[in-house]
Amino acid sequence: MKRDELYVGVDLGGTNVRAAVIDPAGHVLGQEKHRLLSREPPQVAEAVVRAAKTACGAAGLPFAEMKGMGIGIAAMIERGTGMVLNAPNLGWKNVPFLKLLQARAGRLPLSIANDLSVAAWGERAAGAGRGVDDLVVVLVGSGVGAGIILGGKLQEGASGVAGEFGHILVHPGGRSCGCGQRGCLEAYAGGHNLAAWARDDLRIALAAARAAGQKYPALGRILLEAVGEPDKVTAAAMERAAHEGDELSRRLLDEAGRLLGIALANLVTVLNPALLLLGGGVLIGSPRMMRAATAGIDAHASKASRAALRIGAPALGDHAGVVGAALLARASLAAAA
Amino acid sequence: MKRDELYVGVDLGGTNVRAAVIDPAGHVLGQEKHRLLSREPPQVAEAVVRAAKTACGAAGLPFAEMKGMGIGIAAMIERGTGMVLNAPNLGWKNVPFLKLLQARAGRLPLSIANDLSVAAWGERAAGAGRGVDDLVVVLVGSGVGAGIILGGKLQEGASGVAGEFGHILVHPGGRSCGCGQRGCLEAYAGGHNLAAWARDDLRIALAAARAAGQKYPALGRILLEAVGEPDKVTAAAMERAAHEGDELSRRLLDEAGRLLGIALANLVTVLNPALLLLGGGVLIGSPRMMRAATAGIDAHASKASRAALRIGAPALGDHAGVVGAALLARASLAAAA
Repeated sequence: MKRDELYVGVDLGGTNVRAAVIDPAGHVLGQEKHRLLSREPPQVAEAVVRAAKTACGAAGLPFAEMKGMGIGIAAMIERGTGMVLNAPNLGWKNVPFLKLLQARAGRLPLSIANDLSVAAWGERAAGAGRGVDDLVVVLVGSGVGAGIILGGKLQEGASGVAGEFGHILVHPGGRSCGCGQRGCLEAYAGGHNLAAWARDDLRIALAAARAAGQKYPALGRILLEAVGEPDKVTAAAMERAAHEGDELSRRLLDEAGRLLGIALANLVTVLNPALLLLGGGVLIGSPRMMRAATAGIDAHASKASRAALRIGAPALGDHAGVVGAALLARASLAAAA
Repeated sequence: MKRDELYVGVDLGGTNVRAAVIDPAGHVLGQEKHRLLSREPPQVAEAVVRAAKTACGAAGLPFAEMKGMGIGIAAMIERGTGMVLNAPNLGWKNVPFLKLLQARAGRLPLSIANDLSVAAWGERAAGAGRGVDDLVVVLVGSGVGAGIILGGKLQEGASGVAGEFGHILVHPGGRSCGCGQRGCLEAYAGGHNLAAWARDDLRIALAAARAAGQKYPALGRILLEAVGEPDKVTAAAMERAAHEGDELSRRLLDEAGRLLGIALANLVTVLNPALLLLGGGVLIGSPRMMRAATAGIDAHASKASRAALRIGAPALGDHAGVVGAALLARASLAAAA
């Protein structure tokens, strides 16, 4: 392995920063993970560079010999400037993060990308999408997003904000979304919102039950008994309760999966990808939502698009962020050179 | 102009075949249009080649000196083989049209593409999308479809059937579509289906009015007076009646526009194009539907995607088919060479 083929990949979340030295095949040669002590942009930039250097140390390689560094972040990023327009997990708006990083990373070439772009590129370069030119990765976690590769190229859109799949409208006038709109897919299928939806329903049902002199409502009883009070509901608790027969959890997971399935079917009809990778903690954690979603694709995607489609799961797991960020940096810095 | 830069573009419809000699800037040097006398594939192939040769004659150039020929057709076309999987206007399924053409066109390099791909490429090469790398063209006529260019490349999907925008699901369990599904966008906004929707409503309203001893129903009276009987309703008549105050026409055009607007907003949110060109006979003919559609984009697309988007109209008009087919052939045959 020539050293000049090695890149550092960084996965920057709202709580932790992970960094790893990645070879061209996507192997992790050394890594580091630490908690962010501050969310102030300059401190975060320091933490990223420190994590990168520690990862290099773990690989027995000097930071100065890395060919470049890629950073993946759950954010809207402005194409060209690397300006972080909006990163809800970090509470950032319009932070010139690439500049802050560059000031601390010396002459090392940097690239920064949205976490979904990173995930999609990583899967194509070293995961479940190897050799596939038309590939969409959809992750359903606390947020919902898509990374889109068409014709072998990452498609980030005219201003870099493509793939905001969680904010397509699936239910006009529906539940509020964190983005300020109503009826977004994420307002139903995103983990936080899904749990909030159950909590809202449970509070109403509980008040009605108590007014009628009952301890628990009929609808949602199993869920409520399991978590104790509405405020403790999570998407994971809903899946467990659904498995045990809880009717409220079943209805909401099915409805979230139904809306997700229609949205995915429409995406498949319009883009005709060869491969759709479905992942993210909420979706992987809910076989029920996954069933409803894939049934929706089967029922509603155009027949010709469905016939060309394979559905799979991301393969990179915990390493997806660092591997994808490093390999995307490799591809984009090579293209720019 | 060197002759070896000239291509023939062919626009093959269900009724007519048009052919033209096109220079690299998209100018028409000579053209021919004639009616199809048969829809049998071999006869259509003959007619295409004859039209192409006549167009060359009109330009004062020998057919043998053309660099290639591109054919645009309202059809699903299998990538690689040029097999026409489905062309409703011609009543074709699984017709190996490229082979039939090649047998009649000698050694001339051929390419065949969907009419929406042709329209999108033509606008980018010589129309309203010049210089734009991320461009979506949506045409609403009797059918509804999209041509998608991202990163400067035409995106036809893994098997060549991307852009079937008319067949995304916008109304679960809704009106029947010609594709065999229910609730497709085209089932509401496509011209034939839109008129059929009004006819269905008018027949019911008319029967109720007559049962009550009235000549016309209150809802749809202006439309019905204008066309005489429900069977005569067209999308154009609906737009005229809406303009004159017809409430039924207004409701249906607004609802079709509303559904189209949500679908367009979601497309913009996911793809983040720089330019959206909205055209097609039904949409251009209905300022009312156009207003509802663009209002939907403004209201529902993600703010960041909307901020990067310009909305315009296709510029090539009647020549779109022949110009786009020729220039797409130029690009794809050059890429293959």
